[in-house]
Amino acid sequence: MLNRQEYQKAVKDALSYFEKAAIVLTEEEKSKIEVADFGLNDIKQTGLQLVTYINTDRVCSKEMVLFPKQTCPEHRHPQRGGTPGKEETFRCRRGKVYLYVEGDRTENPHCRPPVGSEKYYTAWKEIELNPGEQYTLYPNTLHWFQAGEEGAVISEFSTNSEDSSDIFTDDRIKRAPEVL
Amino acid sequence: MLNRQEYQKAVKDALSYFEKAAIVLTEEEKSKIEVADFGLNDIKQTGLQLVTYINTDRVCSKEMVLFPKQTCPEHRHPQRGGTPGKEETFRCRRGKVYLYVEGDRTENPHCRPPVGSEKYYTAWKEIELNPGEQYTLYPNTLHWFQAGEEGAVISEFSTNSEDSSDIFTDDRIKRAPEVL
Repeated sequence: MLNRQEYQKAVKDALSYFEKAAIVLTEEEKSKIEVADFGLNDIKQTGLQLVTYINTDRVCSKEMVLFPKQTCPEHRHPQRGGTPGKEETFRCRRGKVYLYVEGDRTENPHCRPPVGSEKYYTAWKEIELNPGEQYTLYPNTLHWFQAGEEGAVISEFSTNSEDSSDIFTDDRIKRAPEVL
Repeated sequence: MLNRQEYQKAVKDALSYFEKAAIVLTEEEKSKIEVADFGLNDIKQTGLQLVTYINTDRVCSKEMVLFPKQTCPEHRHPQRGGTPGKEETFRCRRGKVYLYVEGDRTENPHCRPPVGSEKYYTAWKEIELNPGEQYTLYPNTLHWFQAGEEGAVISEFSTNSEDSSDIFTDDRIKRAPEVL
């Protein structure tokens, strides 16, 4: 779990990324920046900063920040009850993000998994997203993503988001937001 | 219908608005900017410029430009077959937009309908959206919106979008994209 100082630094840095991307947030949104360390307590390698604009039964939209070389770990969005799993489009707004999905393995990928977590990364089809570029993931597709050297700001457009149903390859992961 | 010159000017101006809002588009997206004049041939008063990022069966996301005092005319999104109508969240990114929805009439609203079309505007509950502010419209809610004096850039996060099912209060309107 993050301590207060780590959380506050991540929030401050994330706000700076949003500002550089000219993304305007309300004061309320700024006060609700979510910092996820996925229970691994290693946010420099594995973590995600985000603000959720809207999350209804049908539609969700978020704005996310990855710091340089920070990784959102491999997971998928399974069917929930009779509803298909989450469908999501990632659109890079600033910086660069490498997205890895199930499929043909990319030779010489740009990224390496977080040190010590290598065995939990199995999807190796690489998609490079630069500002203005996007990719749509359909339900239940294994995926993970890592920012380039300058970090990244990424918009997500999706169906309803319910983190508790996500299935991570790394069974040590607990997806609980850190808001201290 | 717009002539080529009007269409090209609207696209050029819309691209300038996106650039000022630091919204990065691919060359392909720039070449597919949609200019809607709603068949009224009066784009200065009634029109909308937009780019659609994604529109699947479940999720849609668009980026829209309204020029100063330009109006997107009153309409609603009805149920389609067994599916509820379109749900949409408008988020102001730059400038100012006044959104009018069904409900208690706002005294002294900031906007007037396009001249000559007054009778087709019946929703008068005003919501002012400045950068970072947003509003969610649930299905079948009558609504229209008009930019302030400096125009507006607005993100839309929604369920599937199918313009042909929209019901406009103004029965002269034909919602066909103008891409000349």
